[in-house]
Amino acid sequence: MQQPITLDTRYIDGFVRAHEIAALQPQVDAAHTMLHQKTGPGHDFLGWLTLPRDYDKEECLRIKTVAKRIQADTDLFIVIGIGGSYLGARAVTEFLHSPNYNLLCKDTPRVVFAGNSISAQALNEILALCEGRRVSVNVISKSGTTTEPAIAFRALRDHLVKTVGAEETRRRIYVTTDRVKGTLKGLADREGYETFAVPDDIGGRFSVLTAVGLLPIAVAGCDIDGLMAGAAAAMESFDNPDIHFNDCYRYACARNILLRRGRAVELMVSYEPCWAMMSEWWKQLFGESEGKDGKGLYPASAIFSTDLHSLGQFIQDGSRILFETAVLIGDTGDTFIIGNDPEDIDGLNFLAGKPLSYVNNKAFEGTVLAHADGGTPSLVIRVPRRDAWHLGYLLYFFEKACAISGYILGVNPFDQPGVEDYKRNMFALLGKPGYEAERAALEKRLND
Amino acid sequence: MQQPITLDTRYIDGFVRAHEIAALQPQVDAAHTMLHQKTGPGHDFLGWLTLPRDYDKEECLRIKTVAKRIQADTDLFIVIGIGGSYLGARAVTEFLHSPNYNLLCKDTPRVVFAGNSISAQALNEILALCEGRRVSVNVISKSGTTTEPAIAFRALRDHLVKTVGAEETRRRIYVTTDRVKGTLKGLADREGYETFAVPDDIGGRFSVLTAVGLLPIAVAGCDIDGLMAGAAAAMESFDNPDIHFNDCYRYACARNILLRRGRAVELMVSYEPCWAMMSEWWKQLFGESEGKDGKGLYPASAIFSTDLHSLGQFIQDGSRILFETAVLIGDTGDTFIIGNDPEDIDGLNFLAGKPLSYVNNKAFEGTVLAHADGGTPSLVIRVPRRDAWHLGYLLYFFEKACAISGYILGVNPFDQPGVEDYKRNMFALLGKPGYEAERAALEKRLND
Repeated sequence: MQQPITLDTRYIDGFVRAHEIAALQPQVDAAHTMLHQKTGPGHDFLGWLTLPRDYDKEECLRIKTVAKRIQADTDLFIVIGIGGSYLGARAVTEFLHSPNYNLLCKDTPRVVFAGNSISAQALNEILALCEGRRVSVNVISKSGTTTEPAIAFRALRDHLVKTVGAEETRRRIYVTTDRVKGTLKGLADREGYETFAVPDDIGGRFSVLTAVGLLPIAVAGCDIDGLMAGAAAAMESFDNPDIHFNDCYRYACARNILLRRGRAVELMVSYEPCWAMMSEWWKQLFGESEGKDGKGLYPASAIFSTDLHSLGQFIQDGSRILFETAVLIGDTGDTFIIGNDPEDIDGLNFLAGKPLSYVNNKAFEGTVLAHADGGTPSLVIRVPRRDAWHLGYLLYFFEKACAISGYILGVNPFDQPGVEDYKRNMFALLGKPGYEAERAALEKRLND
Repeated sequence: MQQPITLDTRYIDGFVRAHEIAALQPQVDAAHTMLHQKTGPGHDFLGWLTLPRDYDKEECLRIKTVAKRIQADTDLFIVIGIGGSYLGARAVTEFLHSPNYNLLCKDTPRVVFAGNSISAQALNEILALCEGRRVSVNVISKSGTTTEPAIAFRALRDHLVKTVGAEETRRRIYVTTDRVKGTLKGLADREGYETFAVPDDIGGRFSVLTAVGLLPIAVAGCDIDGLMAGAAAAMESFDNPDIHFNDCYRYACARNILLRRGRAVELMVSYEPCWAMMSEWWKQLFGESEGKDGKGLYPASAIFSTDLHSLGQFIQDGSRILFETAVLIGDTGDTFIIGNDPEDIDGLNFLAGKPLSYVNNKAFEGTVLAHADGGTPSLVIRVPRRDAWHLGYLLYFFEKACAISGYILGVNPFDQPGVEDYKRNMFALLGKPGYEAERAALEKRLND
């Protein structure tokens, strides 16, 4: 069967022997069983595995209806969330539309993301963008108590009440939170906000295809049915544990082998700037799933050819600690034909009449060979087309690859205990009630 | 003497012993001598070292005059360049203004960057942004033959001629190129474009304080005199080779020690989103200067607290291959006071009345201690204020630290031979005249 998305491993050939991938089949089998029989660590967080089939169809319809309403009555849609409640929606929107979406959009609202830092400048800028615009807010938080989004929500709710009044504010706040419990759910019920669910069995970094991601994505005018259909196709494609027929699992194997061979950093590369935020989504997915117990590949990213003129020297000839994973988009939907210059000042007339995508592809081919020659292997993921269906397929590809890869690595891919450590310190230093004991000890360390 | 910018090494204390830094003094002395007596490798590219004193004052005046003219007659200023002809101007503008500069700017033109990728989408979007706007173009290329900017320049010159005619096009193109030679210089002379110089003795990644960076920075309304004055102050501050009195050199030492101790990745961290592109500038500076001969730290970056919710787990508890370099901005010029919520739904009323910057600082303190406890050391660079003067100081700090660090590492920090490898392959695959011999062999490798 022809797969919509393929993994090309030929550019790791000089670095990994063919039998090495085959040798991981038993580990893959074990990981596959743990995942599908829900017997592995983190098995309470496997809702994403069958989500493309089992998702709440009624909620999805409501998301589309609400998105239409927002498109009609809103100029600026502010999405409040951090981590998994931020990256998925932004990555999908920027990939399917553009990193310049807010400069270019015409028939859909501007979509901006708030509550993902503690920067006064960032928050003040969001408030400045509100001036003179019809604003709606989507606050996304399972508990409602995460510091960054909670502060932003305070500010933006205030802004709405002051500018449109309490009644209209209620119609302009959309809440994505726990289905039944939590302070945000309580508030939403009391105020009558339209609410959507963060499922219990899906962690933040796996939540892009739930209401967490889908509402902002739909507001930006992207095709959420296409996303879900692509993910459903991937769910079927990657059901076979035999790595000969499962590129998703082969990707999980190859990256583990490269790590065991001393490649500490996986550099995700794309030749299209619209992929940049997808790399950020992927970094959270893999970094948070695998970076634990002193283990894991460090996920980094670059856009080529842009960064061939900055990081290219290192990749070609620096410390041999990297491998690349290139995501190649076939048809981006854009065409640009290189013009002829009668004077040929730049000496590029040999390219006149050629589409820019042709040059971009030759840049990839030239780069992947040069990097192999320099000692940097590449995995290549080929995506035939930039559209919602293929992106949904790809999202599921990475999610499942991450789960299998984490089990092969020997970690629980579904927890993130280390994320709490800085928060505990921060709360103590901020004087949060209940953290008094730690405070003095921390302050002493800071002032020594 | 009180230094405007300080390096705080206390959070590497558990990882590096005090005598280790002192032990590098002889290597620092040697590097300092090589640099200042111009006896080291790459000594033909040391123009940046005394640039803050020796820069062309007349050209700088002209830049300010021209920038005022552009501000008056231009809505969209398109900067064509790649690598060092792109990152510096964008990084400075986004740091001093905002990553959202183009959404927020009112009295100055939008500034967009073209010719830094081979993406048809990216180029088409620039052309779409031109519609209905008064456009000027600054093309930055030493030779005029670099593929990416040359293609973009063809497209935008065409666009200008078609929309405003040949005569007005000549007034709307600004060229930054070699002072005397090269095809772009020839074209500029024939057409009568206003031109600025790329100095012979300053490589791309060290060129932000030449016309390469200064013209776009001035058009965006930033204070280029402040930048130069800050750099001049840094030039004086970091003239003493004694590492007890030279934080710039101590930074160079500390990162070399951490590398030798097995930390392969330096993660530049900031708590302000406006720093994001400065990290990209820093990545090119250090990655391209040190990533050679199989050596060098891999430069990566993150924005906190944003990425504490994505990469935080890895940094806290994943493979112990990282150290952090945090750039802390004291006064960003923005204030936001956290409001009170009578219901205290999110439990954050203990923060009511506090400025957000206070919380951000406690997030830093909590994080740096948590990461040290988890096994990730941090260097901390403290910048009292976000303004042009301090940024100029900081740019010079990093440039000189990079030179010293590269000499300590044992490389030529001023060349980039590896950048040519992919280009040679690409030209051969594109059928560029003169590359016929390589083409067949490369195609065979791709198709095997």
